[in-house]
Amino acid sequence: MKFRAMVLEAFKEPLRMREFEIGRLPEGSVLVRTLASGVCGSDVHIARGEDPRTPVPIILGHEGVGEVIEVAGEKRDVNGESIRPGDHVIWNRGIVCRKCYWCTVAKQPHLCPNRKVYGINMSCRDYPYLLGCYSEAVVLLPEVEVLKLSQDIDPATVVIASCSGATAMNALDSLTEPLAGKTVVVQGVGPLGIFIAVAVKSMGASRVVVIGGSPERLSVAKEFVDVSLNRRELSEEERRKKVLEITHNRGADIVIEAAGDSQALLEGLNLLRRGGTYLVAGVAVPQQPIPFSVYESLVFKGVTLQGVWVSDTRHLIQAVNLVASHPVVFEKLVTHRFRLEQVNEALQHVEEKKALKAVICFE
Amino acid sequence: MKFRAMVLEAFKEPLRMREFEIGRLPEGSVLVRTLASGVCGSDVHIARGEDPRTPVPIILGHEGVGEVIEVAGEKRDVNGESIRPGDHVIWNRGIVCRKCYWCTVAKQPHLCPNRKVYGINMSCRDYPYLLGCYSEAVVLLPEVEVLKLSQDIDPATVVIASCSGATAMNALDSLTEPLAGKTVVVQGVGPLGIFIAVAVKSMGASRVVVIGGSPERLSVAKEFVDVSLNRRELSEEERRKKVLEITHNRGADIVIEAAGDSQALLEGLNLLRRGGTYLVAGVAVPQQPIPFSVYESLVFKGVTLQGVWVSDTRHLIQAVNLVASHPVVFEKLVTHRFRLEQVNEALQHVEEKKALKAVICFE
Amino acid sequence: MKFRAMVLEAFKEPLRMREFEIGRLPEGSVLVRTLASGVCGSDVHIARGEDPRTPVPIILGHEGVGEVIEVAGEKRDVNGESIRPGDHVIWNRGIVCRKCYWCTVAKQPHLCPNRKVYGINMSCRDYPYLLGCYSEAVVLLPEVEVLKLSQDIDPATVVIASCSGATAMNALDSLTEPLAGKTVVVQGVGPLGIFIAVAVKSMGASRVVVIGGSPERLSVAKEFVDVSLNRRELSEEERRKKVLEITHNRGADIVIEAAGDSQALLEGLNLLRRGGTYLVAGVAVPQQPIPFSVYESLVFKGVTLQGVWVSDTRHLIQAVNLVASHPVVFEKLVTHRFRLEQVNEALQHVEEKKALKAVICFE
Amino acid sequence: MKFRAMVLEAFKEPLRMREFEIGRLPEGSVLVRTLASGVCGSDVHIARGEDPRTPVPIILGHEGVGEVIEVAGEKRDVNGESIRPGDHVIWNRGIVCRKCYWCTVAKQPHLCPNRKVYGINMSCRDYPYLLGCYSEAVVLLPEVEVLKLSQDIDPATVVIASCSGATAMNALDSLTEPLAGKTVVVQGVGPLGIFIAVAVKSMGASRVVVIGGSPERLSVAKEFVDVSLNRRELSEEERRKKVLEITHNRGADIVIEAAGDSQALLEGLNLLRRGGTYLVAGVAVPQQPIPFSVYESLVFKGVTLQGVWVSDTRHLIQAVNLVASHPVVFEKLVTHRFRLEQVNEALQHVEEKKALKAVICFE
Repeated sequence: MKFRAMVLEAFKEPLRMREFEIGRLPEGSVLVRTLASGVCGSDVHIARGEDPRTPVPIILGHEGVGEVIEVAGEKRDVNGESIRPGDHVIWNRGIVCRKCYWCTVAKQPHLCPNRKVYGINMSCRDYPYLLGCYSEAVVLLPEVEVLKLSQDIDPATVVIASCSGATAMNALDSLTEPLAGKTVVVQGVGPLGIFIAVAVKSMGASRVVVIGGSPERLSVAKEFVDVSLNRRELSEEERRKKVLEITHNRGADIVIEAAGDSQALLEGLNLLRRGGTYLVAGVAVPQQPIPFSVYESLVFKGVTLQGVWVSDTRHLIQAVNLVASHPVVFEKLVTHRFRLEQVNEALQHVEEKKALKAVICFE
Repeated sequence: MKFRAMVLEAFKEPLRMREFEIGRLPEGSVLVRTLASGVCGSDVHIARGEDPRTPVPIILGHEGVGEVIEVAGEKRDVNGESIRPGDHVIWNRGIVCRKCYWCTVAKQPHLCPNRKVYGINMSCRDYPYLLGCYSEAVVLLPEVEVLKLSQDIDPATVVIASCSGATAMNALDSLTEPLAGKTVVVQGVGPLGIFIAVAVKSMGASRVVVIGGSPERLSVAKEFVDVSLNRRELSEEERRKKVLEITHNRGADIVIEAAGDSQALLEGLNLLRRGGTYLVAGVAVPQQPIPFSVYESLVFKGVTLQGVWVSDTRHLIQAVNLVASHPVVFEKLVTHRFRLEQVNEALQHVEEKKALKAVICFE
Repeated sequence: MKFRAMVLEAFKEPLRMREFEIGRLPEGSVLVRTLASGVCGSDVHIARGEDPRTPVPIILGHEGVGEVIEVAGEKRDVNGESIRPGDHVIWNRGIVCRKCYWCTVAKQPHLCPNRKVYGINMSCRDYPYLLGCYSEAVVLLPEVEVLKLSQDIDPATVVIASCSGATAMNALDSLTEPLAGKTVVVQGVGPLGIFIAVAVKSMGASRVVVIGGSPERLSVAKEFVDVSLNRRELSEEERRKKVLEITHNRGADIVIEAAGDSQALLEGLNLLRRGGTYLVAGVAVPQQPIPFSVYESLVFKGVTLQGVWVSDTRHLIQAVNLVASHPVVFEKLVTHRFRLEQVNEALQHVEEKKALKAVICFE
Repeated sequence: MKFRAMVLEAFKEPLRMREFEIGRLPEGSVLVRTLASGVCGSDVHIARGEDPRTPVPIILGHEGVGEVIEVAGEKRDVNGESIRPGDHVIWNRGIVCRKCYWCTVAKQPHLCPNRKVYGINMSCRDYPYLLGCYSEAVVLLPEVEVLKLSQDIDPATVVIASCSGATAMNALDSLTEPLAGKTVVVQGVGPLGIFIAVAVKSMGASRVVVIGGSPERLSVAKEFVDVSLNRRELSEEERRKKVLEITHNRGADIVIEAAGDSQALLEGLNLLRRGGTYLVAGVAVPQQPIPFSVYESLVFKGVTLQGVWVSDTRHLIQAVNLVASHPVVFEKLVTHRFRLEQVNEALQHVEEKKALKAVICFE
């Protein structure tokens, strides 16, 4: 069988369509025909060579949903269901070693130092090649943790669960108290921020505030959050006043950074009540250090600051369940659909923030 | 000022209308005109003298929402807002000592051994008399923790938050993991069970199953849960099969007893997956012991069993927020409204399970 | 290479010495010369055929410490350290599938339904045979999670960490609050109970009470706990009085069942304060149900009841660290040492409770 | 009755001895004869006027242990024990409002914005004057949470529990996992740092590393920690190497800042493993912001950063229990004892770091 894929052969150059031939699969692996492949903001950085882990050539794309073509031997999903041709599946984009301290002792497998990720640090140089989602097919190696999907779920809608959605749920999974009765501020209205906003609202938060800069994105958010604040229209002080107003002058119980900008912490820490929790989930690449006032921002307020890095299969399942429960909301996030050969254009849209969520669809 | 109230003067006798005159209030207390007073299932037991704490004479009724008539001095609500005449308020029905081990060290004030409760163990013998909610007015003593309500909230709808709702939130507050992705079984479709079912659904549970015996109540539940099982139509084995079917044969992640019957644990433990959590919230009076298989039900399955007793102000706020976010759903729970002079009839309706939630309304 | 091992060929018959020849090892496995092998109370039950999982023939013994003879290929321990001949090692006695819901989503690998255990449900019928610790050598299959030990640690002393110790730490790992300032009651003074008592004391519990029936074992416990109560000398009511006396009449914050007897829960629940936690760790086989008063024991007291089943690698490491920090204490627990050919005698000693901890030593 | 006390009448001036006459006490209050009063590092700042909350005149001193002279009416301690003349007592130095969101809903009373503290923001201008511990007697107002002490405990040894000790326990109370098996680095060897180091060791941490600059203090620490590193002798890189060496190159599971210097975070974050926890407890006054690399220090490592502010009664009890269990260790921390009239000298010793813990003793 032959499949076409868009390959990054050199950093900063356009991806090129290449063809790969797949023969016998490694025992326990699964070959899937791609149904939808998400274009993640980080793909823009990866294509430029800003992620030191990335080898070339590589098939980019780490978010995917597919239909099973072939199973080499037997494979069960994480629910113990047998995987068969025709099944729709999603999977944990990362493969961890299951042997190290983080995997076996700390129970934080997403922090495994041996983690490999489809479309980020697995090259297409060697067989079975198809280890990225900008491709007509993907080979799920035996170690991949797979989840069967109901065929009722739209692949283009649910593909966000693979990366942004799972990371959002990792953030929220670190909370040790229910969200009921809480006021949450979400900074950023990209796919991560909006996913988080929908998630906290549907997990019982009493009031959700989003802060963003794009009127289009804020208008999407407006439908399901309580307050949306445009940082181009309101000064930082005005935004703070709004948050204090709805919190009896205390500040938010929880602030979640999904803006991808370290500077956002300076505002966010100022919006938090004494004893509040700050989840920092969006800063995915090194940036300039920020000035951090340890006493005022952290100690005197008794604040918890939690860094959130990627996700594991538990979070993927939570994200898929959330999308499945709110299909109408999440369908609206998919503002742009492209064909595989348009990947370079799709990346450009994402880079220029023209798209909220861009998805590569197949047929 | 004179106010009428329905008084229990002797156990097992009908409540009688009496009049009380209120003059000068203790400094820091608040006099409220009752807007709605919930009839709780436990009132039936209390009126019969089954609760050893209860003195007579007493004004029954521990669930109330009121409008402030007068504030003796200054009073702020738990959000620090000043309480003024005309404000709508709800309050923590229990007063705790704030001095004992549970209040100051264990941080479990609802377990304070000195807890006193409006309408349960505070007599109307002595001034200021009005310490129960089956009354035209209630005196909130200085120690009472009060919460101002938006006037948009229907008093009859939100009054459930005072007892069933707050207890439901206490149950869920003991969970240390978010509900996202989880399957929850709720046993019982009375006010507590339905409140819990709505709460877990709006806190992100992926699948909520309720088990009950009343077709009317199940039909109310059906609108907002995923699966409702009638235990008069399905055998215990059939119900178990349903739960296993939607959980890939594992059993539910969480089971919550809200049936008020110890026997329910025998089924519930059998519905739980290995490593699951069982919240027991409905058994509010002593009953026959049940046979408990320690190895099979608890140890081998690595189960957590959590007893849930009453609630505190934190849970009250969570419950009020939940009702405020879902007014349409909770309005449906109020199937019967009575006038103050009809309290005995209201109690009868509750005893005979004719009403889902019965509320005394004033005017 | 040839190694002798004590084999259970038929239930209820004595173990017999057999010889096995080991040639080429499966890639990634490790052959260890046994240094110490613990005789666990459950071995008595297994030898009688009371554990339905057990096949025959089988080499019993699930607690082991060994010295590496040979590594087939490369093997790293859970700390990432390379395993080499001459290293002293201990290992997780259970092998889990790493693929199921419990392993990947619930993060409770000890509850994996596919868990296999050395010396309990892995037969010696097929190569590489040596899958139990009553043997001169053990083959650690590639999936086994191994921990290198300092050569300063006495193998006979640390072998308890493998099963009782790790299970004890699993119990304590479920606590969500530090033990500092807490009063803990431990029921049972066998290896599990004493391990738990030492553990809670060295994890900061303010007062540790043990309840047991054997004067010899209680006298061992006495050295490092605060109060030891002999249930043959004091009535249940007298024991309760002692606990109330040192807890200002509240009862213990935490009670831990390590007696292996379901009946112990009836006393234990009665010793617990309102809002306390009960860890049930010792009941490892099915027993008669106990009468359980749901209201009095669980709901009214707001109690948490936690079933504790076996352990995982995280708990093994915690247990090894504890033994390493208190070598003198733990050495005292090893009251009897036997040679491999004396295993049947060792089992008899354990069955008759003559030994606190019996260990098979290999020169 | 007349009592002498050392009063701060103007900032930056020496404290002066003044006499106060105490007559009738407010109902519910307790008059204690001071047995020991700790000199806290923050007293140096307060005396200079660096704490904006402080009024003058004020009797400084917020750490105290006393013997009851008189009880006005009835008073029980937090264990429910009746307080009587002759009893030795310690108390929560802070009084909180018990009415606000933090006290009643968030259950973080130490963050109550209405918190008042003996010797810090309660003036001696008005009766009953004696609201600081640099005094022969202290009046414990009715709201004060008191704990009776065994007369076996040396007042000078246990007085540290009042502030440093309770703050240390607040830090550790925020941990959601037991310390067993963990490596902990403590930055700072003042009273707070040493208290924390002893606490984590006696709460089961496997390895405790302290980093400090004073050879005398490090030599005190050396007796009960595993590794002590002198930052004057070892470069930051050498210290990091030591931590990596004993953690299989991962870094510490937990780092605790007790140095009082924001700059310490730069080193501390670098010593933490992926997924580790950083408790920041020592920075008690505003300082220059530090440059904080959000991606490298927080997000990529999935780190939890917890600000720790003061303490509540729960932590006080934990601290007292710890001191009571390790009297010999804690007695060594009291390197200097002064009489009341020597307070200015004592403050000088603390400022110049000549004393580890300086205590004012009476008689």
